Amino acid sequence: MIVRPQQHWLARLFVWHGSVLPKITSRLFMNFLLSIVVVWMLPWYTSLGIKLTVAPFSILGVAIAIFLGFRNNACFARYSEARLLWGQLMIASRSLLREVKTTLPNDPDLSHFVRLQIAFAHCLRMTLRRKPQGETLAKYLTSHELHQVLNSHSPANCILLLMAEWLAERRTQGALPDMLFHSITQRMHDMAVVLSGCERIFTTPLPFAYSLILHRTVYLFCIMLPFALVVDLHFMTPFVSVLISYTFISLDTLAEELEDPFGEEDNDLPLDAICNAIEIDLLQMIDADELPHKMTPGKNYQLT
Amino acid sequence: MIVRPQQHWLARLFVWHGSVLPKITSRLFMNFLLSIVVVWMLPWYTSLGIKLTVAPFSILGVAIAIFLGFRNNACFARYSEARLLWGQLMIASRSLLREVKTTLPNDPDLSHFVRLQIAFAHCLRMTLRRKPQGETLAKYLTSHELHQVLNSHSPANCILLLMAEWLAERRTQGALPDMLFHSITQRMHDMAVVLSGCERIFTTPLPFAYSLILHRTVYLFCIMLPFALVVDLHFMTPFVSVLISYTFISLDTLAEELEDPFGEEDNDLPLDAICNAIEIDLLQMIDADELPHKMTPGKNYQLT
Amino acid sequence: MIVRPQQHWLARLFVWHGSVLPKITSRLFMNFLLSIVVVWMLPWYTSLGIKLTVAPFSILGVAIAIFLGFRNNACFARYSEARLLWGQLMIASRSLLREVKTTLPNDPDLSHFVRLQIAFAHCLRMTLRRKPQGETLAKYLTSHELHQVLNSHSPANCILLLMAEWLAERRTQGALPDMLFHSITQRMHDMAVVLSGCERIFTTPLPFAYSLILHRTVYLFCIMLPFALVVDLHFMTPFVSVLISYTFISLDTLAEELEDPFGEEDNDLPLDAICNAIEIDLLQMIDADELPHKMTPGKNYQLT
Amino acid sequence: MIVRPQQHWLARLFVWHGSVLPKITSRLFMNFLLSIVVVWMLPWYTSLGIKLTVAPFSILGVAIAIFLGFRNNACFARYSEARLLWGQLMIASRSLLREVKTTLPNDPDLSHFVRLQIAFAHCLRMTLRRKPQGETLAKYLTSHELHQVLNSHSPANCILLLMAEWLAERRTQGALPDMLFHSITQRMHDMAVVLSGCERIFTTPLPFAYSLILHRTVYLFCIMLPFALVVDLHFMTPFVSVLISYTFISLDTLAEELEDPFGEEDNDLPLDAICNAIEIDLLQMIDADELPHKMTPGKNYQLT
Amino acid sequence: MIVRPQQHWLARLFVWHGSVLPKITSRLFMNFLLSIVVVWMLPWYTSLGIKLTVAPFSILGVAIAIFLGFRNNACFARYSEARLLWGQLMIASRSLLREVKTTLPNDPDLSHFVRLQIAFAHCLRMTLRRKPQGETLAKYLTSHELHQVLNSHSPANCILLLMAEWLAERRTQGALPDMLFHSITQRMHDMAVVLSGCERIFTTPLPFAYSLILHRTVYLFCIMLPFALVVDLHFMTPFVSVLISYTFISLDTLAEELEDPFGEEDNDLPLDAICNAIEIDLLQMIDADELPHKMTPGKNYQLT
Repeated sequence: MIVRPQQHWLARLFVWHGSVLPKITSRLFMNFLLSIVVVWMLPWYTSLGIKLTVAPFSILGVAIAIFLGFRNNACFARYSEARLLWGQLMIASRSLLREVKTTLPNDPDLSHFVRLQIAFAHCLRMTLRRKPQGETLAKYLTSHELHQVLNSHSPANCILLLMAEWLAERRTQGALPDMLFHSITQRMHDMAVVLSGCERIFTTPLPFAYSLILHRTVYLFCIMLPFALVVDLHFMTPFVSVLISYTFISLDTLAEELEDPFGEEDNDLPLDAICNAIEIDLLQMIDADELPHKMTPGKNYQLT
Repeated sequence: MIVRPQQHWLARLFVWHGSVLPKITSRLFMNFLLSIVVVWMLPWYTSLGIKLTVAPFSILGVAIAIFLGFRNNACFARYSEARLLWGQLMIASRSLLREVKTTLPNDPDLSHFVRLQIAFAHCLRMTLRRKPQGETLAKYLTSHELHQVLNSHSPANCILLLMAEWLAERRTQGALPDMLFHSITQRMHDMAVVLSGCERIFTTPLPFAYSLILHRTVYLFCIMLPFALVVDLHFMTPFVSVLISYTFISLDTLAEELEDPFGEEDNDLPLDAICNAIEIDLLQMIDADELPHKMTPGKNYQLT
Repeated sequence: MIVRPQQHWLARLFVWHGSVLPKITSRLFMNFLLSIVVVWMLPWYTSLGIKLTVAPFSILGVAIAIFLGFRNNACFARYSEARLLWGQLMIASRSLLREVKTTLPNDPDLSHFVRLQIAFAHCLRMTLRRKPQGETLAKYLTSHELHQVLNSHSPANCILLLMAEWLAERRTQGALPDMLFHSITQRMHDMAVVLSGCERIFTTPLPFAYSLILHRTVYLFCIMLPFALVVDLHFMTPFVSVLISYTFISLDTLAEELEDPFGEEDNDLPLDAICNAIEIDLLQMIDADELPHKMTPGKNYQLT
Repeated sequence: MIVRPQQHWLARLFVWHGSVLPKITSRLFMNFLLSIVVVWMLPWYTSLGIKLTVAPFSILGVAIAIFLGFRNNACFARYSEARLLWGQLMIASRSLLREVKTTLPNDPDLSHFVRLQIAFAHCLRMTLRRKPQGETLAKYLTSHELHQVLNSHSPANCILLLMAEWLAERRTQGALPDMLFHSITQRMHDMAVVLSGCERIFTTPLPFAYSLILHRTVYLFCIMLPFALVVDLHFMTPFVSVLISYTFISLDTLAEELEDPFGEEDNDLPLDAICNAIEIDLLQMIDADELPHKMTPGKNYQLT
Repeated sequence: MIVRPQQHWLARLFVWHGSVLPKITSRLFMNFLLSIVVVWMLPWYTSLGIKLTVAPFSILGVAIAIFLGFRNNACFARYSEARLLWGQLMIASRSLLREVKTTLPNDPDLSHFVRLQIAFAHCLRMTLRRKPQGETLAKYLTSHELHQVLNSHSPANCILLLMAEWLAERRTQGALPDMLFHSITQRMHDMAVVLSGCERIFTTPLPFAYSLILHRTVYLFCIMLPFALVVDLHFMTPFVSVLISYTFISLDTLAEELEDPFGEEDNDLPLDAICNAIEIDLLQMIDADELPHKMTPGKNYQLT
């Protein structure tokens, strides 16, 4: 039950917001203009012996469609994995707190541990968006912790270490048996998996040449297309050329957008809303008095 | 041995129920009418110099088919994952109860724990379908628990916490050794994985632009198709045009349906029947006196 | 080193058994007859203004091939997963027994536990084939156990519970330390995973509309094909039409067969032979005196 | 850094060894001869009214290419999985020995355990290649063990049991605490996973009809191709026909080769070299005096 | 938020560095020259009865595109897996140290253990690049350890053993309870998984024939293409031929590059930067005084 309002199939043809259309309008318009020039100058350059036919472009078009399909799949896989990792963060956060809370039910400092957990999520989000973290983290960390975290090369990893030390202290005090310390350590490891997974997606784009080759062939294909279509279609060339170009260029552009799922564009992940959901969930599990307001993600998403 | 009655291959061509045909009849009919208009007006607009040929549509058709194939795969992956998660809920529920029952064979309150497990399944189902939960959960929870659960932002997670607390109590009382508490905690974690997995599918649709671009190109392609076919096929245009449109539009529509596997449409998951199966299985494992009636899923499914 | 006799590539063209050819001969023959009628009546219906060309069918053919490819993949994935699950049953059965045997080397009742394990495999096999189980299970279970199992909604799950209770008894008696009870519980859980995995494949077919749309477009395509081919090929139409129809219809039919891997058709899994192999392996591990005869699977398989 | 000598791209066109070309030369030559006959007899059979055009073969060719692509993927997945399993054997062997050695540093019989590990790898290799095992295993096993192993239906599984018994003995003697016995048991289980995984690939080929349908359509397509090409290409028919046939037939043949990754053909896995690497690694970990010679795999592989 | 500077889509068409264009310029230029010769000699060889048309090349082109797509996927999968493994090394390194540090907070020799961890990463990197390791490892290992490692057939595995022995010593001294020794052993196993995974990718290329068949068909296709295009396109042949050749040859070349992700070419993994990041992270976790300089990876990557 996806909440995105179910548009009529006809209305959907004219949707503007959230599509990649605004980004590529100018390119499609240039393609349209080029097509008009091609139609207009057809007699002249035909007289020079220049002619193109659709057949070779059919081979090229299919080949590009296949390769573009594979690239889109690869970019979409990055997007899906990124979402999966944030889902795992949700899982690990809840399970970690559930285990800690049931194992140490009377610990007076439990809310401190929860604040570290929440800080981890926010810290990861802001690292992935290259934003300054000081102000936000100050709400959850003591000033000493904050100083340590901000001076680290990998702030989120530093928070994990603080959490582990909080737990190790309980173990040394005898409140946490080895067995359950081990069990909780597994959940900490799950969070480390999320952290490194996000870093991997963040720092390693698709091999550059992969994107480049397809970008280049798509554009060259679209530029040469009107020359090939004009012999058959004449006045209809601009319309068909723009339609075909739209199909290829919009998918090339979308792939580029999905390649970096942590950005803040229309089709990127709603990290703010996910962090907010984690925060509310964790605070509610320890019966905190004050919960933050529930955030509504952009209209293309709906977080529970 | 799928129980769906094996139809004769000829009979299957005329199946109505469970197909997406009813949803798209009007669109196909409009395509048919458009084709007739195109055939009828061919002489007029040809005289204006407007002509289209099949060749460029061949490039476009193949490209769209490839991209549509990838999108269908992505949507089907959501459907499969959703089914897999509910299968894992079945696994986790049984294993959890098996471990609890064999470890605490004489616990007088075991049926309470089982009720919490059953409530979890129903609660998850109703969350995914955005239905009010109070009435159903009241059958399984005490009024105090019910109050707690309904006031939570994430009711299913709250039930998990209640289960964990039930177990932690046994550990504190010494009935459950740390080692086995840890073991059972793993199964609880499995249920948390299912919960967050379902939430992820539920809240994160396919990137909107992905659906939009394909929806748009499929419909534009089908609208322009009769103009291209008419030169070659003349009177046969409407029939061929509707057949090609059916292929593309029905797969586009099916993908949209599969994208949201938790709905209550023909091709969605039979969550009621799965919950019912979990309930019967768990109750039978503790030799409960009264079992609910076995539910028969819609005719496209057969739950054991 | 697959044992299926390596046929000469020429000989393989004429293989009958194990192919899907026998199932679809009548359909291909009808296609052949239709083609002859089409060739014969060509002058008549051409005079009515009815004509079809290959070009639009090229678009349709490629689109169907792509979608059929994806569907075949999905069906084959079900087949592979089913085989994988039975492979995991083999793994879990052996590892479970190895752990139990080395941990409780002198247990006088070990062969009872092994009989429960073997019964589990047979019970799962017969559930997946919807066969009566009483007679076979009677060989491995006591009459009290048999009664319990046959009255359960989920017999295989009931056997798992019996195994768990056998182990829990050893734990209560002090023969099995908590640590190793936990370890063995993991293997029991592996078997529960296999059980629920098989049930999932068994009860949830591919979304019905997915199969239906492809079935329908494949057949409509094959029916209209001769009309399109006849203009170019004339007398050769029936041969080419049947060859193309064979390619599409046989893959559609095979996909349907693979969708249900637990059946007893030519291309289904050799469950009998797998159960037999598990039985021999387990009995040999406890040095049983009498082993069942090794079963030879159908000629398309070779179980070690 | 793959060691296979980097050939110049031109030189690579003429590579003979390791390609599938030698296997299919005769078939391509027959295709060439057939094409010549077709060119030569064109006037005669055209006068009979027999004619074929490229267009329908275009539909068929693309459909076959798509299905062949999927089948190649499935066969390659078998190959990859087989390699992955042998990689996991390497991992499990090293980790198992590392854990045993560090836990039982002074065990006088450690080299016996290592010999069992090495025997396991060799035994699995020879089972997968259907070779007699007695001679090789005699180097690693005592005569009593050898007798037991060779009389088992599943020799590799029997060796696993011997290893487990060796460990269980240490546990009974008190040298191995339960906790670490459990930990090492996990590694034993990893080896059982490899064993059953290899057996699964070994005993379950791709569904027979899947291979058959593609084999058949590929060959029929290649046989009919010259008839279709000759109208357009005339004298060039044999060359183009052989090129297209090469593309399709070589991939069909390669798929067949990859389907069985445990054979001893050019493109199969270098199991001897992997076993040799495992043996050297394990012996070096216990500072053995004599190491076997390092084996160089076939020129298409390079084992560390 | 990928840092690679967002180029304008037009600028990107002319990117030189990091693309595979420099590698294949000479081949494309030869294709261009060949096309010119073909145009020039067209009248002569047409008079000999030699002619080619685009239609058969359309079949071939699509088939090659499909197979090339699958191969590119397989090569990209190797690249992705390699990156994933190095990401797992990052995860395992951090988690291992976090667990060791919190379990043995006062161990005076902790920095020794960290140096072993760092040595492992560097050793793996240099093994995968076939570089001499002595000089680099000397910075982290004692001379006795260095001697042992360099004399091993598998240096990285030897370092793992040294780490395990360091831990086993703590266990024997009673500083590390069995339970936590087991927990840490899991992380050691994770590092062994990375090691063997990298070795597998490193030593097992794609089946040679797979690369060969595609390489060959791609080049033969590109060589024969001008002959087919010239009839339709005449003077435009060289341009279209080079464009199509670029699409196919560049993807073939890129696949070859991605097949070996551990090299030092433009599109290979930035192993130096990853090792550097691991080193900084680990040293910072034990509050080391001196950190190495942060390395900036090549401009196509950005490590946190």
